[in-house]
Amino acid sequence: MEAISSTLRCAFIFFTALFLLFLSWHPLNNSDIFYTSSKNRIRTKFSSVLEHGFHKPKNHLKDNPSHPLDPLTVQEINKVRTVLSSYEPFLSNFPALHSVSLDEPDKDKVLSWGKGHPLFPRKAFVIALLNGQSHVLSVDLDLGRVANHIINPTSGYPMVSMTDLSTAVRVALSHQQLNISAARRGLSLSELTCVTPSPGWYGPGEDVRRIIKVQCFLSRGTTNYYMRPVEGLTLTVDIDKKEVVNFTDTGFGIPVPRATYTEYRYEAQDKQPEMEPINPISLEQPKGPSFTVEDGHIVKWANWVFHLKPDQRAGMVISRATVRDSETGELRSVLYKGFASELFVPYMDPDENWYFKTYMDAGEYGLGITAMPLVPLNDCPRNSYYMDGTFVSSDGKYFLQPNMICLFERYAGDASWRHSEIPVIGFKIREARAKVTLVARMAASVGNYDYIFDWEFQTDGLIRIKVSLSGMLMVKGTPHEHVYQIPYTEKTTGPLVSENVIGVVHDHFITFHLDMDIDEPNNTFVKVNLVKEETFPGESPRKSLLRAKSHVAKTEDDARIKLKLYDPSEFHVINPSKRSRLGNPTGYKVVPSGTAASLLDHLDPPQTRAAFTNNQIWVTRYNRTEQWAGGLLAYQSKGDDTLAVWSRRNRDIENKDIVVWYTLGFHHIPCQEDFPVMPMVSSSFDLKPVNFFERNPILRAPPMFEKDLPVCQPSASF
Amino acid sequence: MEAISSTLRCAFIFFTALFLLFLSWHPLNNSDIFYTSSKNRIRTKFSSVLEHGFHKPKNHLKDNPSHPLDPLTVQEINKVRTVLSSYEPFLSNFPALHSVSLDEPDKDKVLSWGKGHPLFPRKAFVIALLNGQSHVLSVDLDLGRVANHIINPTSGYPMVSMTDLSTAVRVALSHQQLNISAARRGLSLSELTCVTPSPGWYGPGEDVRRIIKVQCFLSRGTTNYYMRPVEGLTLTVDIDKKEVVNFTDTGFGIPVPRATYTEYRYEAQDKQPEMEPINPISLEQPKGPSFTVEDGHIVKWANWVFHLKPDQRAGMVISRATVRDSETGELRSVLYKGFASELFVPYMDPDENWYFKTYMDAGEYGLGITAMPLVPLNDCPRNSYYMDGTFVSSDGKYFLQPNMICLFERYAGDASWRHSEIPVIGFKIREARAKVTLVARMAASVGNYDYIFDWEFQTDGLIRIKVSLSGMLMVKGTPHEHVYQIPYTEKTTGPLVSENVIGVVHDHFITFHLDMDIDEPNNTFVKVNLVKEETFPGESPRKSLLRAKSHVAKTEDDARIKLKLYDPSEFHVINPSKRSRLGNPTGYKVVPSGTAASLLDHLDPPQTRAAFTNNQIWVTRYNRTEQWAGGLLAYQSKGDDTLAVWSRRNRDIENKDIVVWYTLGFHHIPCQEDFPVMPMVSSSFDLKPVNFFERNPILRAPPMFEKDLPVCQPSASF
Repeated sequence: MEAISSTLRCAFIFFTALFLLFLSWHPLNNSDIFYTSSKNRIRTKFSSVLEHGFHKPKNHLKDNPSHPLDPLTVQEINKVRTVLSSYEPFLSNFPALHSVSLDEPDKDKVLSWGKGHPLFPRKAFVIALLNGQSHVLSVDLDLGRVANHIINPTSGYPMVSMTDLSTAVRVALSHQQLNISAARRGLSLSELTCVTPSPGWYGPGEDVRRIIKVQCFLSRGTTNYYMRPVEGLTLTVDIDKKEVVNFTDTGFGIPVPRATYTEYRYEAQDKQPEMEPINPISLEQPKGPSFTVEDGHIVKWANWVFHLKPDQRAGMVISRATVRDSETGELRSVLYKGFASELFVPYMDPDENWYFKTYMDAGEYGLGITAMPLVPLNDCPRNSYYMDGTFVSSDGKYFLQPNMICLFERYAGDASWRHSEIPVIGFKIREARAKVTLVARMAASVGNYDYIFDWEFQTDGLIRIKVSLSGMLMVKGTPHEHVYQIPYTEKTTGPLVSENVIGVVHDHFITFHLDMDIDEPNNTFVKVNLVKEETFPGESPRKSLLRAKSHVAKTEDDARIKLKLYDPSEFHVINPSKRSRLGNPTGYKVVPSGTAASLLDHLDPPQTRAAFTNNQIWVTRYNRTEQWAGGLLAYQSKGDDTLAVWSRRNRDIENKDIVVWYTLGFHHIPCQEDFPVMPMVSSSFDLKPVNFFERNPILRAPPMFEKDLPVCQPSASF
Repeated sequence: MEAISSTLRCAFIFFTALFLLFLSWHPLNNSDIFYTSSKNRIRTKFSSVLEHGFHKPKNHLKDNPSHPLDPLTVQEINKVRTVLSSYEPFLSNFPALHSVSLDEPDKDKVLSWGKGHPLFPRKAFVIALLNGQSHVLSVDLDLGRVANHIINPTSGYPMVSMTDLSTAVRVALSHQQLNISAARRGLSLSELTCVTPSPGWYGPGEDVRRIIKVQCFLSRGTTNYYMRPVEGLTLTVDIDKKEVVNFTDTGFGIPVPRATYTEYRYEAQDKQPEMEPINPISLEQPKGPSFTVEDGHIVKWANWVFHLKPDQRAGMVISRATVRDSETGELRSVLYKGFASELFVPYMDPDENWYFKTYMDAGEYGLGITAMPLVPLNDCPRNSYYMDGTFVSSDGKYFLQPNMICLFERYAGDASWRHSEIPVIGFKIREARAKVTLVARMAASVGNYDYIFDWEFQTDGLIRIKVSLSGMLMVKGTPHEHVYQIPYTEKTTGPLVSENVIGVVHDHFITFHLDMDIDEPNNTFVKVNLVKEETFPGESPRKSLLRAKSHVAKTEDDARIKLKLYDPSEFHVINPSKRSRLGNPTGYKVVPSGTAASLLDHLDPPQTRAAFTNNQIWVTRYNRTEQWAGGLLAYQSKGDDTLAVWSRRNRDIENKDIVVWYTLGFHHIPCQEDFPVMPMVSSSFDLKPVNFFERNPILRAPPMFEKDLPVCQPSASF
């Protein structure tokens, strides 16, 4: 979700000082920054977080890269700042650094690299803003110089920075009209918490400057200010000129919804839930986890090896995922790189205060920068390992996202395969194998919404990519307290979910970049269509059957897929040069599950910008610059640099290095159960081996035996 | 899957004796019956099963019913036999009892019943066969007489009995032509294991008698005989006349696939899998589970109370599922009855030996009768409770399915809701709640395929119904050992999954009967359609949006739903007489996830019989006789008693007692990984509260705290 919020305090200067502290804090007290700061008028105890077992992040000051894909270290981040400070175009004016990340070496180099080899020259990929211009740079860290520099390569701007957000809120709060509008409603500015929805892009009028919207909520009596919108108040702020360019107040007369029942913090609850308590339950591994994390980023577990890293924009990146062949023991490539490339969230309300809410959360805000520390025992189980993110603030200083990713073995009580024979048969067989998987997880809190990303690895070769949604609804104030008060002629844009609160209908689309390399980079995308065939007269008592027919996608045009229940297909990525012993091409298939499609008009500006959601599956020719489905510069972009545009080139994709893009969708019609915090909703898709292994790779997996399981007692506190 | 198998032994009489023992065993040695019997030539050790901690079933001789929906007890089953033995039409000839189950009291009576009330007169519902006629009887156990008796109410026959299956195999094996065909292939009858696919119904020629197909496999060198088809040999057996009515041998020249790599039992593996071992991991609840099972069948957990019972045909039945209101604490009705009503599995091969493989596993074989004991620690986690099934064999004697259902609390390391605030905000919030659910599970091994049914209850009110598939493929012999040997002109009906083995393409459709009673029996089905609307010129910078539009289904015609990705809807079951404080009708929605539709021609005989799969959702008026989507007598039925026929009556369903039917589908194009045993594949759908609760019912749920969690050590065996 969808809006970065910032809070107005009476002592605004104090807040700003804190914010500067946030941007510049020292690594040795990183772990404190989230837990000590100004007193809130609404008291927030952090003891519960600490009780949950906060994992103190490591000191990353002396981290060194050991793999070509390792993220920039603290020292490298500092070097970027040094290089850019003495870079001639920036000598007089240091730009705001909106993104600083590893400029990954070319894929062929990475593929040729092996442990123990020297690293390739390390480079940083920087997106900066200066005087309203977007600068895209590559900084050679070994040579200590800018190796490449492009200005305004496409429309749009880089991700907004935390500084932008606080600037926008500050500008809005010092705007006289906001003060008047608040006073007219009997609200004081000090009670407002303001959020910063991105403006989208709605025509040439929005071309000339970097703008952001500001809307405010009443935080009186609750930390869940999201449920108390001051409806109809919208400021449009020019971020760079630091001025309000538009102000609308159409909401006078719409009451601010009350605070009752909005509070969700555990320590603020005054009652027990209406249910019997659940006895303590835990995933226990007294001998410890079975995976290792080597050199900070190489994860090894069961038959899997992959590189895992935090990313400021994508949140979490899986690289070089390889699985051990069940026959030869050889490590074989499955996925060169996989990550959430963009997240599109259009709200369905044409109102002047709502039409622009069509977020692209990865490109506009960043999924990594908003991925807060996971809560041990509740976000992730007890047997988790945590990984920190090392990111960069807009002044070029690094900061930590501690405990940003957790990694754990999941055992949910399920089987990975099983078979019984009925007793009348001579073979009295009861065979079952418990399923244990490995999960890498992060949770981005993009304002109100929380997105939990899971990459789950199974020993049978399957990778499940799951997105779960929780957090707060983006709600709309309404005069109505009851459905019966809504006039028949009034077209609401969502259901009443509390008194004076409309839960506006919206969608979520998460587009994944899946650079599949089945054994080798050159792969082919094959649609295996199940076609109904009629039998010919006399052939069979059966009149019809389904037959699997393979269609090789020769070009990008052939690989734009809309899923159809009544015209079903499987979607295989095969290596045409590598075959199983039986002659089947080795491959993986993309297996959709529950999903939703974007139904917006293709000419609607948000859909043009998010045209990457026009299909559920696309396949493109690999191009190292085509990483972000909504464009490198997604903020206020016009859609000139999206996946849909790249695909239009209709490149050859047969037996080429290809990238698969899968979009997972959700329609969300809110209901009262989503108030004041939403029960988690999940959906997923799978990457599943298909003739990749010669046979079931877990045929020989051992069952669980009682003798191996732990002996547990209630903890000493009982 | 789809075929009940039986094994030919040299000493066939010995086998038959054992089978009779199975049908008549004494409860006190039930736990042994699965583990002591004839020696197999292929040695099978059962020690591993025992090591896993086999849960000895209880003695059920003295069970008494304590709830109107409790299944028949041993004493009641014995009484049924006594009553029918002295029932005049059966005096000279006792019929074969194909199904004996509780004849449930009328719904209004059950709804009026409360704990402590006397039970209503107990009745048994019996389906029997005598002289080729299907007898449907109700036996009043209190009065000790037959209360109702109908002969041949529809086309079709009752589920086949285990006696039928062994009869069919015996008849086939004593058929001279089979002996000749086997000898011609160099196979001895004693090496054959024969299975009994149901014949479907393919026209008037199959009306006059009860038939079954018999096909054989070579069990030489493997317990996984399913991977060694003797292709092209099919016998059609008249079960009642005990004679072969048709014999085809079209497969000479097709080699029997080899046994290599087909064995899946753990003790038969000679190698470790190619992966690092996984450390012991377990779901631990040292204070025990949080649920109770009262009076054998009433499950109470967290905010849920429901009745759970095994069923010979449906496998597992959930009744009277009620959830506690999060405001009032009152127990509120959600579901009167839910179960798997039918399971349709059409194979896609018109071949003379394959066309009929279009199984309806519940109605033809029974999901309960084929639900073998679950394997502790591997089918279900360590913290499981097990429930036995008390069923009836065709001679009227009862028998136990021990450990047929497991019930456990699942904790998979996930959260049930969460929210974080970014640090620049004054509210430094990290709130997350771990998700613990309750799962009821059974696994039916209908011949080769294993179907795992999970009913998962969440504290937020959601019920997830999941079906998982594992077991063995039904494979076809082929002369080809390699894809390159397959002539371009040859249309195979599936991929080569091993040398000489084709994995024939097939579908699975599981149709659930969901008698929703949201607070009260009278409910309304509402389709909430998301419709694309264009804005009018000048209204908004946005051109389009989605608006939720509700359509009340007035009659059954209005409630036949084909899911459409590009015309999406939610499917609500609401109580029009009960509204939330805001005026929203209280309801639950059916939430599909990944699924598949049947694409067969509606006039194809199997699709006519399985016309209940013509839509993904149907809603019918409640009728106590409409339980089985494929008809009460599904075996060789013509489709005259299916859900599709009932729905054609187009009854009023608005504000009436209604039943929702949901069909979960799978297309399966096999691959080499499915050989020799299939990694589990799952799909699910949800029943989810929508304005049923006034707000998030788990808002007040406590997080997990470290102090509450167990202290565990590796077991003593380390």
